Amino acid sequence: MGLIVQKYGGTSVGTLEKIKNVCKHIKETKEKGHKLVVTISAMAGETDKLIEMAYALAKNPKEREMDLLLSSGERISSALVAIHLNEIGVKAVALTGRQCGIITDSAHTKARIKSIDAKKILKMLDDDYVVIVAGFQGISEDTDDVTTLGRGGSDTTAVAIAAAIKADVCEIYTDVDGVYTADPRIVEKARKLDRITYEEMMELASLGAKVLQIRSVEFGMKYNVPIMVISSYTYNPGTLVTWEDENMEKVLVSGIAHDKNQARITITKVPDKPGISARIFGAIAEKNINVDVIVQNASEAGFTDISFTVARNEADKAVDVLKPVIKEIGASDIEIRKDISKVSIVGVGMRSHPGVAAKMFDTLAKEGINILMITTSEIKVSCIIEEKYLELAVRALHSAFGLDKE
Amino acid sequence: MGLIVQKYGGTSVGTLEKIKNVCKHIKETKEKGHKLVVTISAMAGETDKLIEMAYALAKNPKEREMDLLLSSGERISSALVAIHLNEIGVKAVALTGRQCGIITDSAHTKARIKSIDAKKILKMLDDDYVVIVAGFQGISEDTDDVTTLGRGGSDTTAVAIAAAIKADVCEIYTDVDGVYTADPRIVEKARKLDRITYEEMMELASLGAKVLQIRSVEFGMKYNVPIMVISSYTYNPGTLVTWEDENMEKVLVSGIAHDKNQARITITKVPDKPGISARIFGAIAEKNINVDVIVQNASEAGFTDISFTVARNEADKAVDVLKPVIKEIGASDIEIRKDISKVSIVGVGMRSHPGVAAKMFDTLAKEGINILMITTSEIKVSCIIEEKYLELAVRALHSAFGLDKE
Repeated sequence: MGLIVQKYGGTSVGTLEKIKNVCKHIKETKEKGHKLVVTISAMAGETDKLIEMAYALAKNPKEREMDLLLSSGERISSALVAIHLNEIGVKAVALTGRQCGIITDSAHTKARIKSIDAKKILKMLDDDYVVIVAGFQGISEDTDDVTTLGRGGSDTTAVAIAAAIKADVCEIYTDVDGVYTADPRIVEKARKLDRITYEEMMELASLGAKVLQIRSVEFGMKYNVPIMVISSYTYNPGTLVTWEDENMEKVLVSGIAHDKNQARITITKVPDKPGISARIFGAIAEKNINVDVIVQNASEAGFTDISFTVARNEADKAVDVLKPVIKEIGASDIEIRKDISKVSIVGVGMRSHPGVAAKMFDTLAKEGINILMITTSEIKVSCIIEEKYLELAVRALHSAFGLDKE
Repeated sequence: MGLIVQKYGGTSVGTLEKIKNVCKHIKETKEKGHKLVVTISAMAGETDKLIEMAYALAKNPKEREMDLLLSSGERISSALVAIHLNEIGVKAVALTGRQCGIITDSAHTKARIKSIDAKKILKMLDDDYVVIVAGFQGISEDTDDVTTLGRGGSDTTAVAIAAAIKADVCEIYTDVDGVYTADPRIVEKARKLDRITYEEMMELASLGAKVLQIRSVEFGMKYNVPIMVISSYTYNPGTLVTWEDENMEKVLVSGIAHDKNQARITITKVPDKPGISARIFGAIAEKNINVDVIVQNASEAGFTDISFTVARNEADKAVDVLKPVIKEIGASDIEIRKDISKVSIVGVGMRSHPGVAAKMFDTLAKEGINILMITTSEIKVSCIIEEKYLELAVRALHSAFGLDKE
């Protein structure tokens, strides 16, 4: 008898038939004697439909109202799941983010969970309910408004609740059957990983492998929640995200990640004075735009060029924010390049093995791929390259680091 | 400069184009200098779509979860309206039922408003926002769960808020252009009424004229809120629901109402003992099923037949509830008849004019229409008749009481 949190993604509940399947699986889990909390995403396509309507009505929809709008999708799907569970004899109750005590900050459309008061969930579990939770949403601590946790936010809802109620495991049911050494659509020889560390998963998530939302992995690591990625088609065990063990260290690189959602912004002839960078990146941060790779080149005496990458869909917004700043600081111009991508190698093994980065650069050079920007962390190396070379780069690195399956 | 509450129904916000039209009208009202609260229904068809999904997943969906499900429609439409208003330069904020402080009882799917704490609305009005309110919903006082107010509940939201903030008028925009002396689809010569009393409107609403939810009229009368029914196509002034004035008293009958959503249930050979009626109608009330007309006939010594009407869509549920009760009290059988309808004449003038009922019965008799059951109040007389005679009855009464337009 365990305490389990499950999370079903949008494709898993995309039709009424699929909702019935999910309910059947929940019933089977419950009948094994487990206590069960289930987080549900919006039905596939629903969130996109709502976003489309909002953008048909406004160029820049108010984010507070977007959250009220988008949170509806998960309320609908979680109510439907609870309704069918009761129909097939499983005592179930649907709770909203607010009712689950999920308090977030006020960064609408990408809020972060600050705390969870799980007493209602625990009370319902004690009363033998399967607790169905509307994912992706919470309530802002200051204004009591509905917030959403960003794309993939239901993963974070699930893991955060698992942490709050000290669940034995958080099972993420999704339309992939686990975490792969690379995207199987690009690399035919990609292999499924049985285990991966939180740190590696975080790097992979932030690098564009869309299996789990990065915040969910952070929560898992911080609160020691094992996360199991499972296919919602086969229900076969997929990949366990957990702590490092000895075997894992032996592998140099665990996976190759890539991200097309990249744009480079270059500000030219920036006066080389203290406080200028803070002014630039402060203005961007204020708008909640994440900056990824930053490179500063000396160009001529007293001036410098600053390049950085942002998500491609936020690039225009970033340029709008920066235009007045450029004038104010006396820089020359701002340029934007959207035909770039990021490829990365990730592995905890890197810590104890030097020369991994060099091998990566060498591999790319051999394929004639020019590296535009580089960034590294303890367990990853990322290169910004022209988008047209991306697939080639991923396949070459996958092979060079011995990840191809036999 | 006034304080106005407006309410737009589902067809008024049924498409993105219509939402834009509504926003334009809101903007024009705001620009006249009024303070404005706007209650929005779900986009036409959305609530039905959600109900359909629920019933595809369960024969008797849990009402608590139904409310969570159905309340989503109004959250979506109110968010969309607020989003577009901001786009066209009107400062607007969307609030949920909870954020509007709407506290209800716990009768899920047909909850009643117990109180409104309007301080958030008033604060937003002071800050010069147009306040967009998700209609049809509140929060139950005991359990903090989402509740809904029943079909047409957004009317009640609007009038209740108008009462709470002491608005000058509550404008109900709908797909009809006012209250008519009879349904114009049945009576070609029906006339639009410029004014009608709260009492008459309540009788008409409860009798099946679907212009306003009955609870909203009760609120209007109790808290002295003038209610203006306006066409959302023409924006022309329609019918004002208000207090009686001298002119209105002169009219014997103000309107003819009809209701097809009727079924008669007859329990035969009920032992004629004290407490039996209480047992029968107590069991029905417990399931929140409304009973309308009740007739008790002496049949044979020591036994009686009891007939009553309920909404046709609740008739099967009522019979299910009563089957064990029939056994328990030793009655003979339970019969159900669904081919009946109700026709009613309504008018405050009746109070001071005797003989109105007699004239009604006479009119029906002349058309060869048999009366199955009768019920009366101070300002109305209703007859249950066979459904096939309904249109004929409405037209005959409309003409007999001098309501036909020239």
